[in-house]
Amino acid sequence: MISVVILGAGNVATHLFKAFEKAENIVVNQWYNRSLKTIKPYKNKIEIIDDLALLNDADVYIIAVSDDAIAELSEQLPFENKLVVHTSGGVGVYDIDKKHKRGVFYPLQTFSKDAEMDFKSVPICIETIDKKDYHILKALAISIGSPTKKVNSDQRRVLHLAAVFVNNFTNQLYRIGHEITESEGAEFDLLKPLILETAKKVQELSPYMAQTGPAKRHDKKTIKKHLKILKNEQHKDIYKLLTKSIQNTHGTSTGSATNFEKNTHNGRKKL
Amino acid sequence: MISVVILGAGNVATHLFKAFEKAENIVVNQWYNRSLKTIKPYKNKIEIIDDLALLNDADVYIIAVSDDAIAELSEQLPFENKLVVHTSGGVGVYDIDKKHKRGVFYPLQTFSKDAEMDFKSVPICIETIDKKDYHILKALAISIGSPTKKVNSDQRRVLHLAAVFVNNFTNQLYRIGHEITESEGAEFDLLKPLILETAKKVQELSPYMAQTGPAKRHDKKTIKKHLKILKNEQHKDIYKLLTKSIQNTHGTSTGSATNFEKNTHNGRKKL
Repeated sequence: MISVVILGAGNVATHLFKAFEKAENIVVNQWYNRSLKTIKPYKNKIEIIDDLALLNDADVYIIAVSDDAIAELSEQLPFENKLVVHTSGGVGVYDIDKKHKRGVFYPLQTFSKDAEMDFKSVPICIETIDKKDYHILKALAISIGSPTKKVNSDQRRVLHLAAVFVNNFTNQLYRIGHEITESEGAEFDLLKPLILETAKKVQELSPYMAQTGPAKRHDKKTIKKHLKILKNEQHKDIYKLLTKSIQNTHGTSTGSATNFEKNTHNGRKKL
Repeated sequence: MISVVILGAGNVATHLFKAFEKAENIVVNQWYNRSLKTIKPYKNKIEIIDDLALLNDADVYIIAVSDDAIAELSEQLPFENKLVVHTSGGVGVYDIDKKHKRGVFYPLQTFSKDAEMDFKSVPICIETIDKKDYHILKALAISIGSPTKKVNSDQRRVLHLAAVFVNNFTNQLYRIGHEITESEGAEFDLLKPLILETAKKVQELSPYMAQTGPAKRHDKKTIKKHLKILKNEQHKDIYKLLTKSIQNTHGTSTGSATNFEKNTHNGRKKL
């Protein structure tokens, strides 16, 4: 049995609480938040507290608060030499106060407030300063069904950055698709199967191999047509820049590509 | 029973052939391609020809060739007053020679050469000059299980453009994610569940509502960190431009957004 205390009440904290609650060999001892209001709906399931002095003993303390608040909260914890981890992609493990045994338990996924999350689809990136602490975090992840990966701070930092590209920026491209279609009275919904298929394709194929379209084909006529249709100057800039980026990746129409492309385009690995 | 002739041998032609073959009330009479080599593997299932003079009678002739070749091929067809359609997102219906009854049968999806495609996930955008021709194309789409939508040339043009954003450009963001992670020895595979979840999210939620992350939060500290990690100048430019685009969409941190955003962010429609 692994005992856990959760600190924070955002999406990550809430989804972790729900997953831990269902897991057989995890017990959540307490849920702390600065304000009780957010976690009050759970008060019949778990002891909720808003005073750090009330914290009980646990195997792992999970700080799931905003990046800026992690260091300070870890400092305020009224004990030492216990395993304290944060859940952030962008914060170093050394930002946790040094009086603790320190680690990171970073779920690489986007959480919605309402939708249920199956933790089978949530890879947990684990980092610990002391090797001995690694196994308990791995056991914690496995108990909720998550794949795990040992990831150092540099790797976690680039994963977080890459996540901005494949999640936030991709979502903004969906948004632009939404704007463009609705501006002509066409339905964005018609694009939804394509959006899903595009994401499914790279589950098996590398993005390099999956690429198609006018930019890759150097189809100047279509590119020109598209730029003419776009009215928003920023959309035009995005179209041009990403077209150039695709062409850099895939080389000229006669087919020169950099070494990275050649080396990675077949990359099919299992998680 | 609807009889069909397919002209062309690319991904769209091949996937359509396979779907038509399975459908109960469709018969493919012939499959034409300029070179027989590509379609030879199908010669036991269907009459294959490389000579337009051999074309038989059919209810619908489907031209699924590259955009540039559509007009000329339609002109070369040795008959008139029959229903001839193309399958392109970017070509007008009037590009088909005027001796024919003309239409468009545009499958809005990305097709892989090898992977099977379930046409339930392939919306067919239909356009015809004569209203009477619409119903046979709709029946054709329904027979292979596809959702259909009446779409005029302007709408089809913007759908095709939007498809470049949500498919080609999105795939390039995946590619950049691949480059960034591998540059630090982190695994791109860790991002795959996130990629899938990002696409799934907008099946229910508008991209506006689904947005999260440092750009939307105006989290300058994280944005600065990310730009520092990025070594590739073009990746930096893409990061900056898409961050700006997100901030234009979502307004300042105090929350001003344009009318379009306010009007569409709740948009949940069914196909």
